Amino acid sequence: MAQADVTDQSARRGRRGGGRAQRGAERASASIEQLPWGVPLNHDNPVEPLPPEGVQAIHDAAMRILKEIGIWFLHEDAKKILKDAGANVDPNSDRVRMDEDFVMAHVAKAPEEFVITPRNPAHAVPIGGKHMAFVNVSSPPNSSNLDRGRRAGCREDFQDLMKLSQSFNCIHLMGGYPVEPVDIHASVRHLDCIYDKTILTDKVLHAYCLGKERVEDAMEMVRIGCGISHEEFDAAPRMYTNINSSSPLKHDTPMLDGAMRMARRGQPVFVTPFTLSGAMAPVTLAGALAQQTAEGLAAIVLLQIVNPGTPVIMGSFTSNVDMKSGAPAFGTPEYMRATQISGQMARFYGIPMRASNACAANCPDAQAAWESSQSLWAVTTGRANVVYHAAGWLEGGLCASYEKFVMDCETLQQVMSYMKPIGTTPDDLAVETIAEVGPDGHFFGCQHTQDRYQTAFYAPFLSDWRNFEAWEEAGAIRTPERANKIWKEILANFEAPPIDVAIKEELEAFVARRKEEGGAPTDF
Amino acid sequence: MAQADVTDQSARRGRRGGGRAQRGAERASASIEQLPWGVPLNHDNPVEPLPPEGVQAIHDAAMRILKEIGIWFLHEDAKKILKDAGANVDPNSDRVRMDEDFVMAHVAKAPEEFVITPRNPAHAVPIGGKHMAFVNVSSPPNSSNLDRGRRAGCREDFQDLMKLSQSFNCIHLMGGYPVEPVDIHASVRHLDCIYDKTILTDKVLHAYCLGKERVEDAMEMVRIGCGISHEEFDAAPRMYTNINSSSPLKHDTPMLDGAMRMARRGQPVFVTPFTLSGAMAPVTLAGALAQQTAEGLAAIVLLQIVNPGTPVIMGSFTSNVDMKSGAPAFGTPEYMRATQISGQMARFYGIPMRASNACAANCPDAQAAWESSQSLWAVTTGRANVVYHAAGWLEGGLCASYEKFVMDCETLQQVMSYMKPIGTTPDDLAVETIAEVGPDGHFFGCQHTQDRYQTAFYAPFLSDWRNFEAWEEAGAIRTPERANKIWKEILANFEAPPIDVAIKEELEAFVARRKEEGGAPTDF
Repeated sequence: MAQADVTDQSARRGRRGGGRAQRGAERASASIEQLPWGVPLNHDNPVEPLPPEGVQAIHDAAMRILKEIGIWFLHEDAKKILKDAGANVDPNSDRVRMDEDFVMAHVAKAPEEFVITPRNPAHAVPIGGKHMAFVNVSSPPNSSNLDRGRRAGCREDFQDLMKLSQSFNCIHLMGGYPVEPVDIHASVRHLDCIYDKTILTDKVLHAYCLGKERVEDAMEMVRIGCGISHEEFDAAPRMYTNINSSSPLKHDTPMLDGAMRMARRGQPVFVTPFTLSGAMAPVTLAGALAQQTAEGLAAIVLLQIVNPGTPVIMGSFTSNVDMKSGAPAFGTPEYMRATQISGQMARFYGIPMRASNACAANCPDAQAAWESSQSLWAVTTGRANVVYHAAGWLEGGLCASYEKFVMDCETLQQVMSYMKPIGTTPDDLAVETIAEVGPDGHFFGCQHTQDRYQTAFYAPFLSDWRNFEAWEEAGAIRTPERANKIWKEILANFEAPPIDVAIKEELEAFVARRKEEGGAPTDF
Repeated sequence: MAQADVTDQSARRGRRGGGRAQRGAERASASIEQLPWGVPLNHDNPVEPLPPEGVQAIHDAAMRILKEIGIWFLHEDAKKILKDAGANVDPNSDRVRMDEDFVMAHVAKAPEEFVITPRNPAHAVPIGGKHMAFVNVSSPPNSSNLDRGRRAGCREDFQDLMKLSQSFNCIHLMGGYPVEPVDIHASVRHLDCIYDKTILTDKVLHAYCLGKERVEDAMEMVRIGCGISHEEFDAAPRMYTNINSSSPLKHDTPMLDGAMRMARRGQPVFVTPFTLSGAMAPVTLAGALAQQTAEGLAAIVLLQIVNPGTPVIMGSFTSNVDMKSGAPAFGTPEYMRATQISGQMARFYGIPMRASNACAANCPDAQAAWESSQSLWAVTTGRANVVYHAAGWLEGGLCASYEKFVMDCETLQQVMSYMKPIGTTPDDLAVETIAEVGPDGHFFGCQHTQDRYQTAFYAPFLSDWRNFEAWEEAGAIRTPERANKIWKEILANFEAPPIDVAIKEELEAFVARRKEEGGAPTDF
């Protein structure tokens, strides 16, 4: 895994060699000057809104929910597995209750850190600890750009957004579909999409839990894409899935089924309750977070019983709703605090944590930027390990914006640069240089500056720092219009990462065979 | 001073009585639903990029700068005062050197906290500790709005921006002129401006250090505005000034003169070095911060000799420049870290800290929003006590934007709401409510929600949280256009805060007399 200083811009150019994989990481895009590939390390102490007794109070409340109220598991096998392990399963309903000792004994088996390795090993992603990895936008039904406006998702837009995701080094994992391509029939959509993903990208892939066929097909296609045996696939994380609870208090059938299939083969499962405060969870943040914790731990317990030690992530999606309309809001003060407290809870259980770079705005304007920025600094100060929807999300997740994608990558790079440690060596403190320049000079020309100026500061690819007159003279181009130009250049110059011909043919044959078989049922 | 829960939106309406001052705070603006007046408390542990030895290294470097290189004081009285106190003053130049014991002995006299009380005591502002107070934009030469574009500052725009500053409860102190009104002759500009400020606002006022006449006039006008005697004025902070060093390593004549005049009367001085890394300070952040610290402490030492215990603030303005153009950049990763480390240094010396909500963008678009947001979360996580330029700043300080002002107030309110403590009482944890709603209900209708929904979440006045279809149907209004509508409503409905007729007449007479005397020299 590439853990070099990802913020060293001198590493941007020129380095070659190191095998196919390394080349794949280096050539991400010729259209932008960007930071090199690398998952940043978040060295700061996290912001912790709650004192230890507050964390304990949420834990205690979650334990009461699990013991006294229970979680409804809408899956017969799951209930049987939990019953056999000693949980209190209601014979007449889907309700499962479990006490603290039972929960904590199973939760303790989940690893604190793991690594997911995709078909290009140079794009392996460490999860947990101080690592902070970014995932592109997942699952909007619509996509938009300034040229053609907003439309329902289609394969062309899906492919465009995959190309952007591959091109930006600051996108570490591929999420769900960056837009749902509804022009592909649902029975075979997963086959075409995972094929496209495998060809257009060489980063970590994701599978939806939407029935056994889709999950099994996804795992098989990732295995083929990696060019490895079934045993090698089972031996280490190669991909992941994300499941959401059906809050309040339920885990539904396809999610549980897919999660268990992934867990059996040691593939990571992100468990993300959808506990919108005031709607599917209490209007109080502490209540919503207690419910989030209970729902999340319940599924994690199941997965640790299915395969002890299987990698899991605690997801946080707790935000508030607009109490006037019931619409979800994101990037709010409440979202920030919920995210930071979710970080406290995840560290309490020793499990990596997922959150999101979310906003509610309808276009890539200032509101979108401040809501996303607040989300981004919440995940950073909350020390999330995985940031879903890191680039491209608009409208509370209902739209993937090409321009917003580029804008978000600009701010993701700034977060990565922010994480660069600050030196205080004599060289950094520069007292001799200050003496040399004295009270009447400036630092532009001195040797200390000359030696460092090319790499001293983060150089944005999207911000316009010219003065007003120069900016106006050049057409007063606003941020979304600048972003529009950039994604077009990236798509125009896109080169798919290399893939072995034999692997490509095997994938194509698999897709053809599964299509002949009819794909997957569409009765979900 | 109003230290109630400023984030409790139930306090928004209806409360009346409590005397003129309280009414003044309550009636800030009829045009927007906003948080009540109050200076928020920042309870979080600050983000500290440097370990203690890093802070010590910057301190040690600052001490070396002060002892070995020196600071140039371009003021004869200041040099004499420093020499008499024991500093090493070069007889043939303006260079003053001082050793650590000398510096630290004087710095120790500066108070850790103080309160500035303006003519409306309900708008008194506590400075230091966990308090975080916001100042409107200061000193741009231009202002802009969507209706008439950008133009050089004039009194009309100055007055408009003062009205906005008075109307928003989240603006706690008035800064320098929110735009420089160049249609008023420089000799009398300060008289008209401070008169306008006193009439249009009742919050804490600021004086520029631009020659003795202006500072003395400002102090006299604030004294008259407060309706107090000279002795009462001298007894406690009633206003403040901000001085900038002429980096590298110099304090100039008018700044030192004004600062000493303010200090003699016990009025607070914010000392803000202008150490742009790569231009007026080393290209390394540690070097720029060592220089910032040395320049700041040098002036603070002088002021503590002039009047031991006089209130001072350490200002941070360290940012980086665009190494291609030399233009200053703001809201960058480097700016964020410099701000947080400045907080560490200020706490090391036990002196309150000032930073800024700055950006480099040329219009109130997404770049402006993310740069300002990054500045705002840097000052929040760095635990700045005073946030200059909190609302309205664009173009690295060259333009005050009406729309940006409104947008910034929206995000300032979100920061204030973020600071609301999160409860974890049984009522907050809501386990009984979760049991009551169960797996098949929702929380909208339950009593726990009904009892709290009006005040549970921060309600923005500017964000549009409607879904895309409703937003588009309503005209797809973007953030600046929405902000445009809001400032127009505020200005249209503006009512100046009450002022005693006798005070108003005394102020008018003072202005008239000083104008007859010719105002102030314009040879600065």
